[in-house]
Amino acid sequence: MGKSNLQLVNECDKFPYYQDDPAFYTDHLKNYHAFKVSGCNAVLGYMVNSVVEKFSWSADCWNVDSKSQTVTLITPPHATPQDRTRLMADTLAEVVKRDIFEVLRGWRNEMYPIYGPGGEFLFEMERSATPLFGVLSYGVHATCYVEDESGLRLWVPRRSKTKQTYPGMLDNTVAGGMSTTEPPFECLIREAQEEASLPEDVVRANTVSVGYVSYFYVRDARAGGETNLLQPEVEFVYDIKLSADVIPKPNDTEVEAFHLYTVEETKAALANGEFKANCAVVLIDFFIRHGIVTAENEPDYLEILAKMHRRLEFPTASHASA
Amino acid sequence: MGKSNLQLVNECDKFPYYQDDPAFYTDHLKNYHAFKVSGCNAVLGYMVNSVVEKFSWSADCWNVDSKSQTVTLITPPHATPQDRTRLMADTLAEVVKRDIFEVLRGWRNEMYPIYGPGGEFLFEMERSATPLFGVLSYGVHATCYVEDESGLRLWVPRRSKTKQTYPGMLDNTVAGGMSTTEPPFECLIREAQEEASLPEDVVRANTVSVGYVSYFYVRDARAGGETNLLQPEVEFVYDIKLSADVIPKPNDTEVEAFHLYTVEETKAALANGEFKANCAVVLIDFFIRHGIVTAENEPDYLEILAKMHRRLEFPTASHASA
Repeated sequence: MGKSNLQLVNECDKFPYYQDDPAFYTDHLKNYHAFKVSGCNAVLGYMVNSVVEKFSWSADCWNVDSKSQTVTLITPPHATPQDRTRLMADTLAEVVKRDIFEVLRGWRNEMYPIYGPGGEFLFEMERSATPLFGVLSYGVHATCYVEDESGLRLWVPRRSKTKQTYPGMLDNTVAGGMSTTEPPFECLIREAQEEASLPEDVVRANTVSVGYVSYFYVRDARAGGETNLLQPEVEFVYDIKLSADVIPKPNDTEVEAFHLYTVEETKAALANGEFKANCAVVLIDFFIRHGIVTAENEPDYLEILAKMHRRLEFPTASHASA
Repeated sequence: MGKSNLQLVNECDKFPYYQDDPAFYTDHLKNYHAFKVSGCNAVLGYMVNSVVEKFSWSADCWNVDSKSQTVTLITPPHATPQDRTRLMADTLAEVVKRDIFEVLRGWRNEMYPIYGPGGEFLFEMERSATPLFGVLSYGVHATCYVEDESGLRLWVPRRSKTKQTYPGMLDNTVAGGMSTTEPPFECLIREAQEEASLPEDVVRANTVSVGYVSYFYVRDARAGGETNLLQPEVEFVYDIKLSADVIPKPNDTEVEAFHLYTVEETKAALANGEFKANCAVVLIDFFIRHGIVTAENEPDYLEILAKMHRRLEFPTASHASA
């Protein structure tokens, strides 16, 4: 008996909901400190209490209030994003030096943006540190598929066995994190080239933007590093319909090989737990939008679709050009 | 300056969220009694306090607890759905006789199902009474569209000026409420025939099940009857791609006429507030899934998509056959 679609979604969207059990939720929040920056009236992430204890918070720029369970980056009133970015980088450099956090051993040299209310860009921080602060991160996921007389088939890559995170697991055809200021579609073009050797013109001609999935992930051992760190995410989702003669190919060391899976093969691999957690969610969304998973064949249809579009409690980005 | 897509979604999804302001939300809930049935540990809906006061609750089968703000239908331990349905019908007959509620003047003679945890069918009740109890109701909405050398165009009906609810407003091509035990796709087939004269074989051949929209509606004057009643809804969503020679036609008195709108005409009518609130949401979802509304052209993209897939706090139906 394999995993159900709801089990797969629950593995990705693990943080409790207030509405399911208000008392449990309120109590659960005591495990975290709220992360804020001065001058911005919003919680930007939840930090696990044990993580908060391990930092050496410089009193110059941090206020840790153990009563309200809040960690606040303190800056002068007219601080710029650059100011905040620098203070965060200094703070991280100190814990890297002391080698306090396992997740920081996987330093990526990629900067992730943090937004305030109204989509205001507040600062950026090293990607591998985002789960320490429990801040929202963004990515793009695309499913390349072929639909012809042989039916619908999906291009499924297997991650390299040497990859730091989720080695050897199945993935979405194209997937990647969004670095600072990069609009989602531009990120997709870049990742499609880098990961699947898909030329820009092919991607532009065949891609449909179809929404996003969002969920509140709690990191487990497969993610590498400390467990139970929080990683709320928004993944912009794209469908790329390819003719059978366009074949994705590995272009870097991240992917071992691409295979063309039938719907049934994909479902079997999902039930077998072979897909990285958030990639499973993207495929279930694909199946729902393409009429493959329906209210009539999926007992948990309503719960699945709502959970994979979780309205997260943190301010979110806005990528629209004015 | 017309209405933004977020404004349109907010008109439909009006009930507050705990996460936006826990104190306000908790306080707001004091305006309602929780509706429950004995033997089922779940809140099935929220009843406005002034509505609770107007019923004559028979002590035989109702327990109204003003301290915990709960209205419970009390039945013997082994009550059947039929038992609960009969008690509810008797209770409604009494208030209809006294002509207490405006919404019940629009008696529909349609029974709507109420579900408990795990999708258990608990009972059914008259459609027009569901907002008095604030219970979740279900429907189907389909967008018929043509995509050819003239681009993408949508079949948009205008509701009859004599229709009881939302007269004269624009609608989705096919839309209707789901009566007891009817699976969503069968409901769609029926409504497509009744409202748009679309033959069953055409609908079966051209329809893709693409998900659902859900929201927590608070009734305003356009809905008819008492305002501020709660109407949480799940609407199963379908795309029906038609060739240009298939033309929807009014078949009953509900629709005045169908028109083929371009995307720009549809957007203009949306911004102009011409669409019934939940039909606007279904169209925005259509535009998102078809790559017309994207993260790059819609500043409120993230908020819109999450709100239109609201995870409601009540038990939901399961339409999957075993």
